[in-house]
Amino acid sequence: MTEIDRMLAANREWMAQFPGDLPVAPARGVAVVACMDSRMPLFGMLGLGVGEAHVIRNAGGVVTDDTLRSLAVSQHLLGTRAVVLVHHTDCGLQKASDAEFADLVESRTGHRPPWPARAFADVDADVRESMRIIAAAPYLLSAEVRGTVYEVASGLLREVV
Amino acid sequence: MTEIDRMLAANREWMAQFPGDLPVAPARGVAVVACMDSRMPLFGMLGLGVGEAHVIRNAGGVVTDDTLRSLAVSQHLLGTRAVVLVHHTDCGLQKASDAEFADLVESRTGHRPPWPARAFADVDADVRESMRIIAAAPYLLSAEVRGTVYEVASGLLREVV
Repeated sequence: MTEIDRMLAANREWMAQFPGDLPVAPARGVAVVACMDSRMPLFGMLGLGVGEAHVIRNAGGVVTDDTLRSLAVSQHLLGTRAVVLVHHTDCGLQKASDAEFADLVESRTGHRPPWPARAFADVDADVRESMRIIAAAPYLLSAEVRGTVYEVASGLLREVV
Repeated sequence: MTEIDRMLAANREWMAQFPGDLPVAPARGVAVVACMDSRMPLFGMLGLGVGEAHVIRNAGGVVTDDTLRSLAVSQHLLGTRAVVLVHHTDCGLQKASDAEFADLVESRTGHRPPWPARAFADVDADVRESMRIIAAAPYLLSAEVRGTVYEVASGLLREVV
């Protein structure tokens, strides 16, 4: 039994507490943009109920073309207008550079990746830059854009101002 | 008080059940690639504990360059080797075409987006195509790639084979 088999089996327990069918548009009109980090259970951390907010996640929680595509779908097709960014302390992308990452991938696979890892040094600065890009994106309709850093050692979500 | 203020306030309750500091590498060695849909609380749905799996999410749960970047970071820097895809029924991207989406964004903002919405018709086919792209990606080290569809009307996670 692999870890994925265990997840499929766990879903049968979830079905017992399944809250029922809900509308496709998020009830609270918010999209969360967060890092993929395994220590961030966003529904629990943010008090989100099922059906309340979109959750977009990638390595670093950085804003890429795919983030903007997802936010555009969220806003234009499904009516969200607020965006909250969730980065965090102790991120894997703070521990390597883009060049070191490309070298590592090439040494292991024989192929140099065409995209940068998007490593960063200062998490607060990265949140501010992400907020700036989203606020300036010409394809979006954001009414509120805010940024936070999750402290993985304490569980505190700190707003970046 | 905005919805984002409510989420920041809810975090203070989360801190009371915070499980403590955990390693950055996911304990179960799995990365989940899922749609951003608000009806999918992945930790609950898959029986995931804090610190166990990476969670990558975008509009549709489709595989883009940003998905491959995130998976490469997950595998090369943080040791995951399994990938499970989670698409779902009643997806917003099944209800529009890429051209209709571009027209809508342009009509509202005056700017035509440079990226497609990534609309799709058949969710099972889209899961299979995503599995194929990940399994064939030359930059990855995936040992297991599996795909699922979450039935939003029942809570069942169905494997696509």
